[in-house]
Parts: sequence; C-alpha cells; structure tokens
Amino acid sequence: MNKDLNYLVVGLGLMGGSVAKALSLKGYQVYGYDTNLSSIEFGYQNGIIKNNIVSEELIKNADVIILGLYPSIIVSWIKEHKHLFKQNVLITDLTGIKTNIVNPIQKELIGIGEFISLHPMCGKETSGVEHSNIEMFRVANLIIVPTESNSKESIDFARDFGENLEFNNIEILSIDEHDKMISFLSQLPHVIAVALMNSHESDSLVRYTGDSFRDLTRIAKINPYLWSELFIMNKENLIHDIDEFIKIMELLKESINNEDTVVLHSLFKESKRRRENFDKK
Amino acid sequence: MNKDLNYLVVGLGLMGGSVAKALSLKGYQVYGYDTNLSSIEFGYQNGIIKNNIVSEELIKNADVIILGLYPSIIVSWIKEHKHLFKQNVLITDLTGIKTNIVNPIQKELIGIGEFISLHPMCGKETSGVEHSNIEMFRVANLIIVPTESNSKESIDFARDFGENLEFNNIEILSIDEHDKMISFLSQLPHVIAVALMNSHESDSLVRYTGDSFRDLTRIAKINPYLWSELFIMNKENLIHDIDEFIKIMELLKESINNEDTVVLHSLFKESKRRRENFDKK
Repeated sequence: MNKDLNYLVVGLGLMGGSVAKALSLKGYQVYGYDTNLSSIEFGYQNGIIKNNIVSEELIKNADVIILGLYPSIIVSWIKEHKHLFKQNVLITDLTGIKTNIVNPIQKELIGIGEFISLHPMCGKETSGVEHSNIEMFRVANLIIVPTESNSKESIDFARDFGENLEFNNIEILSIDEHDKMISFLSQLPHVIAVALMNSHESDSLVRYTGDSFRDLTRIAKINPYLWSELFIMNKENLIHDIDEFIKIMELLKESINNEDTVVLHSLFKESKRRRENFDKK
Repeated sequence: MNKDLNYLVVGLGLMGGSVAKALSLKGYQVYGYDTNLSSIEFGYQNGIIKNNIVSEELIKNADVIILGLYPSIIVSWIKEHKHLFKQNVLITDLTGIKTNIVNPIQKELIGIGEFISLHPMCGKETSGVEHSNIEMFRVANLIIVPTESNSKESIDFARDFGENLEFNNIEILSIDEHDKMISFLSQLPHVIAVALMNSHESDSLVRYTGDSFRDLTRIAKINPYLWSELFIMNKENLIHDIDEFIKIMELLKESINNEDTVVLHSLFKESKRRRENFDKK
C-alpha cells in the first residue's frame, strides 16, 4: 500500500471507522465519506480521518475507496457515484456477503477501475464510528474474495491491507465458498442465538445463568438492520443450513424421547470429536 | 460444618474430587469411596482424601455423605448401602437433575437420616479426579433443592457447604423449578451445540472459524454418558423446550425466506433486549 495515495472510507460506521483508524495510525492519508456529518466530525476530532467536511471532491481525489456500507445499498452507491471516480480507482469493501455484490460491482467498474472484495470476519455488539476498535482485527480472519477478473496487483493490495491491519490470518475464497462458509460458521449461530433468546422468557432466570448459556447467546445482541440484510442476501445457503440443523435437533429430540442412548452417545461423541478439532488450531 | 465429623465423598470423579479437594483444603476430614481404586490412590497421593483403601468401614463411620455419582445409579446406591449408614447420617448429592432422585432417596432414608439435595452449576469438558478443580466453584451458582421434609439444620448445612466451597452465589429452588430452569439454561444449550456440530461437516472450516462459533460450540465437548442420563431423566421439560426453540427457528426461517424484515427486526430486537439483561448482573 502506497503512502502517497488518497484512501477514502465510504460509510464511517463501526467497521469503516475501525479500518480508517488502523490505516491512519499506520501513516496513510485516510479520508471519510458519510451522510451522517456527526460521524465525520467525530472521525476528524479523533484523528481517524483527515477531513471534517464532505464533498464530491473526496471521491474525485480518491485513489483507493473502501466501502463500509450496508450490503443492500452498496451496489447502488457505486452506480450513483461512478461518474466521479478517478480513472483506475481501486475499490474494496468490507461486506459479510458476496453473492449479488461482487459481480454487479465489477460489471459497473468495467473501463473505470477494479473492485477486489474483502470480508474482515470480526465485529462488535455495538455500531458507529464512536466504537471503532482496531484490536478486533488482530484476533480475526480476513477473507479475500477475488474473481477471475481480478489482477494479481489487486490481490497483492488486499494482502497488504490485511497485513497493515494486523489480521491474525488471511485466506482466499471464491464467492460461493465464502457465502457457504459464512452461512454455517456465522449466520446460523446468530440465528440460533436469536431463536434461543426468543423461545423462552428469561428475565426471571438471569440469577441462575452459567457461562454456557451466556457464551451461546452473546451474539444474540445483534444489529437488527445489518443482520436482516445479511441473512436475506444469503438465504439460499442459510435456509439449507437451518434445515439441516433442525433435522439433527429433531433426531436428538426423538432419541431423548425414546431413551435411545446408542444414538445419543454416537451424536455426542461425533460432536466432541469435531469440536476438539477446533481447539487444535 | 463441623470439623470433628467424617465426610465421605462417594464417586471420586471430577465433581466429587473437586468437592473433596476444596473441603480438605479448608481442614475438613474427607474420605473417598469409589469402585475405581486408581481414583482413590490419586486422591490420597494428592491430599484430596485421607484414605488409600476402600472398605465398608468408611460408610459406617461417615457423618456426612456427599454423592458424586451418575444420576442413573444414585438411588440404587442408597438402597444397597443404607444398612451401613450411621444413625442420623446427613447425605447430599451433586446431581444435575432432581426429579426421580430427591424424593426416592428421602423415602429410603426415613428413620435413618436426612437427604438435602444440591446442584453445583459448574463442570469441565473433562472427567475424572485427575482434573479436580476448585476454581470452578468460585464463578458458579450452587442451587439448594430442599423439600418439605428437610429440616432447617440441613438447609443451614447446605449454605455452609456452599460458603466453604466459595460459590459465587447460592440459591434455593424446588425440584420442579430446578428441573425446568436447568432444561432451558443448560440442557437445551448443550443439545443445540451438539446438533450444530453434527449438522455439517466442519473439519475443512476450522481455519475460517471466529469466536462466535467457538463460543457457541464449546459445550459440544460433552461427556456422552453423563449427559444422556441427564437429558433422559429430564425429558418432559427438555422436549418441551426443544419444541419451543424449533418453532422460533422455523419462524426465523420463514421470515428470511419471505424477506419479512418486520418480523426479523422484531425478533432481533427482543433477543437483544433479553440478552442485555444478562449482562447487567
């Protein structure tokens, strides 16, 4: 990543703000673009971005644009602003879902610039630039999601970006692999946590709660607007995973009801074996 | 708790061993009883218990007996050994389920002694006296589960026991309240974690896994034999809770499929509200 270039973070929320902060701390020239001017003001006052006003000039001068927008508006933002882009602009994103995002954006940018897609697998139970946090990158994976139309240079940029933000691990996946993986490892657990919290009155149970329940439901403190979009945009994978999960829940229920310890022991042993595999890494 | 009395821990596994260790460290005279003589030897060598042989004399001399046995064998152990009990013996247990345990034991002990039931809400993903751990009590709840036939003295003993083991919190619940609470707060989360790990091949996904998935599935490393018994002995409550949970999973699935953001936002907001309530304590 070149320190002479202008970096523009569009959407200065929790993720965009955290990226801007990390890059500014490394000495890059980072600007912010957001319709919420108090986010810009906060970013400016706290050394996260260099500008305290917002204008189209920021887009015109940007060599690299980092999109921290909600998934539902990211493609239309590109369409509405591409006439302002500098020739050969490099654009990236931080979106948690890739189908119907990466290919449409790349199509919009033909003849203008290049889009290389990123997903930093981290987040907080808060939102807004005020909660910007660069520590979360250091324990997280960065997934680079290139397509056939990406250049080697854009993938090198993505790796360099990941190293600058000090991600714990950097991986490359296709759009399809990414969206299947995120459905099972992130979206399904969030659906489960939300379902568990909604399935039973719990206010009277707080005093008896142990770590197991708290660990399992921590992610139920979900940003309702962002996660609705992520679930709906990945619904084909997610509904498949929910169905598979419910099938096993039904099998466990029947085995408990029939006192079938053979099936129960076998399911418990397999879950233990698979989960222990996650501790080794 | 009187330091002149003889305390006998029956079943020197993870829980029994941890209780024995904590009481020995406080200066009580603690003995162990187990069919596995290597557990006894380990307990003796490590200062957890005072004896390195096992005989009926231990039962005859015990003033207080603490049962660290599997739920399926605890009532029959009482039946088979009650002819050895000292008159007015005080017996307690550490079992995670109370229906079909507490009342049958109290009935067996009429005219012999008293049974006051306890549930230390803690555990580890390991088993055996070798993994004894007294730290786990300090972050856990102790639930005392008295019945109408318990004396004030036995409840005072239970509280004193909880204070000696330095539990974070001590609560009193009825058998029915306890088994309903444990179904939702502990058993259902364990069923969910096991189902999640069994619903999808995951070995190839380890490298992408974040904290959410790890937190949610930590408890999938379950002791298959103990938890099968706990689930089956509480099946009426647990099957009800599984059904309620699956209903909400189905509602979430339908809402995602129909892109019904009104229902999704409402479920997410409620789960967030309820879960935040757990952070305040």
